[in-house]
Amino acid sequence: MSGRPDGEECLGDLGERQILEKVLRPRYAGVAGFGDDAAVLGVPIADRAGGELVATTDSCPTPLVTVLGEADLFHTGWLLVTINLSDLAAAGASPLGLVVNYTLPATTTVREFQRLLDGVDACVAEHGTRVVGGDLRDGGTMQLSATAIGQCLPDRRLGRAGASAGDRLLLIGQPGYLWAWAFVVAGRARLPEAQLRQVRDRAFRPTAQLTAGRVLAESGAVRATMDVSDGLFATVRTLCEANDLGARIDEDIRLDPAVESVCEQAGVRPFDLAQTWGDWSLVAAVPAGSVEAVIAALAAEAVPAREIGELAAAGGGYVLTGPGGERPWQGIAQERFSSSSWHGDGLDRMLSDLSRTG
Amino acid sequence: MSGRPDGEECLGDLGERQILEKVLRPRYAGVAGFGDDAAVLGVPIADRAGGELVATTDSCPTPLVTVLGEADLFHTGWLLVTINLSDLAAAGASPLGLVVNYTLPATTTVREFQRLLDGVDACVAEHGTRVVGGDLRDGGTMQLSATAIGQCLPDRRLGRAGASAGDRLLLIGQPGYLWAWAFVVAGRARLPEAQLRQVRDRAFRPTAQLTAGRVLAESGAVRATMDVSDGLFATVRTLCEANDLGARIDEDIRLDPAVESVCEQAGVRPFDLAQTWGDWSLVAAVPAGSVEAVIAALAAEAVPAREIGELAAAGGGYVLTGPGGERPWQGIAQERFSSSSWHGDGLDRMLSDLSRTG
Repeated sequence: MSGRPDGEECLGDLGERQILEKVLRPRYAGVAGFGDDAAVLGVPIADRAGGELVATTDSCPTPLVTVLGEADLFHTGWLLVTINLSDLAAAGASPLGLVVNYTLPATTTVREFQRLLDGVDACVAEHGTRVVGGDLRDGGTMQLSATAIGQCLPDRRLGRAGASAGDRLLLIGQPGYLWAWAFVVAGRARLPEAQLRQVRDRAFRPTAQLTAGRVLAESGAVRATMDVSDGLFATVRTLCEANDLGARIDEDIRLDPAVESVCEQAGVRPFDLAQTWGDWSLVAAVPAGSVEAVIAALAAEAVPAREIGELAAAGGGYVLTGPGGERPWQGIAQERFSSSSWHGDGLDRMLSDLSRTG
Repeated sequence: MSGRPDGEECLGDLGERQILEKVLRPRYAGVAGFGDDAAVLGVPIADRAGGELVATTDSCPTPLVTVLGEADLFHTGWLLVTINLSDLAAAGASPLGLVVNYTLPATTTVREFQRLLDGVDACVAEHGTRVVGGDLRDGGTMQLSATAIGQCLPDRRLGRAGASAGDRLLLIGQPGYLWAWAFVVAGRARLPEAQLRQVRDRAFRPTAQLTAGRVLAESGAVRATMDVSDGLFATVRTLCEANDLGARIDEDIRLDPAVESVCEQAGVRPFDLAQTWGDWSLVAAVPAGSVEAVIAALAAEAVPAREIGELAAAGGGYVLTGPGGERPWQGIAQERFSSSSWHGDGLDRMLSDLSRTG
């Protein structure tokens, strides 16, 4: 096996042992237990007292920005970390470390691999955590997964169950950026340079809401949480099913100016952009009397949040409310192992679906 | 998407939500936090005091027994768990739980998926641990990985570093069974029914040496450990490199009678079968004065172990010693991202390599 036609060195030119020495050791030699198969979650014992340990694993789909033409694996690495940390955020947990699992073709260049690792390491650093171990294997197609391990505050693990009818739903984070970028790339909207950069940055480097998750857990006022990994509808429906409830969601939603500008140009209603996936927001169920305090606590950490509706009795189903009255919510939701499962090949349909209702 | 021609229901017929309800919930509903994205490592806090947390991840190659004709995914699931728990064993850690990550084609039948889960669950149960969470995604090819999380005894985490020249090397476990089975399937050896069943059982259900790892950690006498995931040579070489040492290994080794019978019939030297991979043995470096006590402590837990050689100064390289004198050790070792990386397609070559030296 030899390098690519352009002369770039491939992983298959190095072999596992040289990959370890030339690529991984310089990067991770400082990690406790580097070289051992089992990674050490190097947290002082005292700091762990009292809080439940949690673990979550997710594999990384082809990022939308890659489908849209971005070849740099940095963003794939960044997304892999975000996806996993987002699940810790929804549990109100703080990360102790991440283990990564990479299957890569032997024709992957060393430079590509380095960019993948750069993205992973940049994202874990952004959240004050790190890669503590991993596995690397050659295979026919790239397949990336990770496992994030975290710790909750004592008796404060958040989850899907525990919400009641009448609880308000908060949407935490800034939705709409990823698919706004898709409309820009598709030529359906134009933005001034500063907004363009803002939309691109958020689409390329989505942020797990770990800070928000911690604030929600500390508040003691939150009854249930979930991250928006498959769209707002899928998230709300899952929350409802876990608690045998329905939901009433206000479709009159304001987004950030750059995103609203894309909506207007592309003929997309803000609510429809807000209910897409890819921005790694959180949804939280909060008793009405605590909404103001929770939003203020989030604001104190510079985390935007807004009330988007409430949980209701199961019989009511999923209802959208707005200036024009009420209607059933037929939300955007991807479901794995179904025709809606996202593999990066339904872009045109997704864009059409979004603007059809505009 | 519809079922297979034979009418069997596929995962693509169900979709993610029905897979959750029909397959996963009945199996895992009792797990704390079932349905949440982050799994709970449900261990009482008091039990965790003092011991380091470790995590390890490995993806699962195509099992050799599958290459040899076994279609039942039970054994793939079993192997996935064994691979991961074996790394905990090498750290001297006890498992707290496993998170699994499955990418499966939508054409996977429900029955196949159930068998995969059966194998995973049987193997974790065998070791007194369990699956605490996971991720399921559809994709073009099956890709399975897992992450095992464990806890070491206080100040007793074992790893590759810490061995000295003169330390004896113990091989812990019963090597040779997996490739003995390969010779049987290839028609190169025949065994009476009882031995055949014994060889098949061990090949199909290899056991991670968790009990041994715990005994080694408790002994306080072990300086370094590693599991034999890529063959004995690769393991000893890695241990040596981690400690800047060489090794002298006695090639006069006795194996279990069924395995020795296969060796004799197939024209393979016992040492060559012993140095293959797939039996998930451990290698441990132990000061000479402690060898007897460590082997006795292992024997008390019914774990077989034998001294196979010693660590030496780096300059001596890797030497085989035996009745016929000394010779350099050119061991069998698979290396990922190289031509020796195992993808299940080099079986004939592997069998030839093994018997060439016979």
